[in-house]
Amino acid sequence: MSEQQSLVVQPLTAQAFAPFGEVIDLRDVPSAIINQGLCERHSDLITFDVDEQGGKLGLSLFQSQRRSFPYRLEMVERHPLGSQAFIPMSHEPFLVIVAPDQAGQPGEPLAFLTQAGQGINLFKCTWHGVLTPLEGFGRFAVLDRIGGDGSNLEEHWFAHPYTVFAG
Amino acid sequence: MSEQQSLVVQPLTAQAFAPFGEVIDLRDVPSAIINQGLCERHSDLITFDVDEQGGKLGLSLFQSQRRSFPYRLEMVERHPLGSQAFIPMSHEPFLVIVAPDQAGQPGEPLAFLTQAGQGINLFKCTWHGVLTPLEGFGRFAVLDRIGGDGSNLEEHWFAHPYTVFAG
Repeated sequence: MSEQQSLVVQPLTAQAFAPFGEVIDLRDVPSAIINQGLCERHSDLITFDVDEQGGKLGLSLFQSQRRSFPYRLEMVERHPLGSQAFIPMSHEPFLVIVAPDQAGQPGEPLAFLTQAGQGINLFKCTWHGVLTPLEGFGRFAVLDRIGGDGSNLEEHWFAHPYTVFAG
Repeated sequence: MSEQQSLVVQPLTAQAFAPFGEVIDLRDVPSAIINQGLCERHSDLITFDVDEQGGKLGLSLFQSQRRSFPYRLEMVERHPLGSQAFIPMSHEPFLVIVAPDQAGQPGEPLAFLTQAGQGINLFKCTWHGVLTPLEGFGRFAVLDRIGGDGSNLEEHWFAHPYTVFAG
């Protein structure tokens, strides 16, 4: 944990995000060209990982207020029982904050800025900040575990909040 | 089938769309308020209906060219083995065309215009036009059956194409 407790956003890339989840984006080459040549299909981009125990994968909408830089990061959370995908429903970047796990606690967070048109799928049990749209409509489609037994939410509040800068 | 072979779009409503699929939209009342009061969660909005036979539900991206009115509808298709959800990734309306089944053939089509921020989930085996964004980025997240055995695509080309008007 740095003394300054500040974070600077970096561009979201599949490689940098690989320990935490998957970037939802077009591949270099489409899986198929459909609709009489007018549409690229890029198939099967993420892995759903849901502990059922009576639960299931569901589609939800999140309608969020927008945030702005500098952003104050006070807490992260994680979902021990399932992956969680966020698909923006408007064409703007959003802020993604994740942190590695260190013996059950979040380590130093990383802040990523998506490109417009990208989504993310967080792996099960990845520490992450709450949904933080910066511009636009603030609506996201979310694919995560619905219902079932067990607690699927763990929160960690930082003793010293971070300030996230646009860079 | 009318002699004019013309269709006029109508606003997409859950009631009018009920025979064909589900409208993905906020409910009147959120399922929960999350993220310290800054986000509405509207949970579990659609039903995934996928014949597995070695296949599975997958997330794909469709990157489509835009269309415009008057739109020429030459064919519809359907997927006998699974539902298919379309989530727009930019904040504009799109055109949705469906048709009732009449003894294995599509009847008179209906044309709907979504509101920005809405998606749809087509029931398994619903006749529908191909993806037709009208404005914006043309990218959609799609949830449908991936892989597996059996043919999941049936096409019908109309002897006399329809012309779809904005109304």
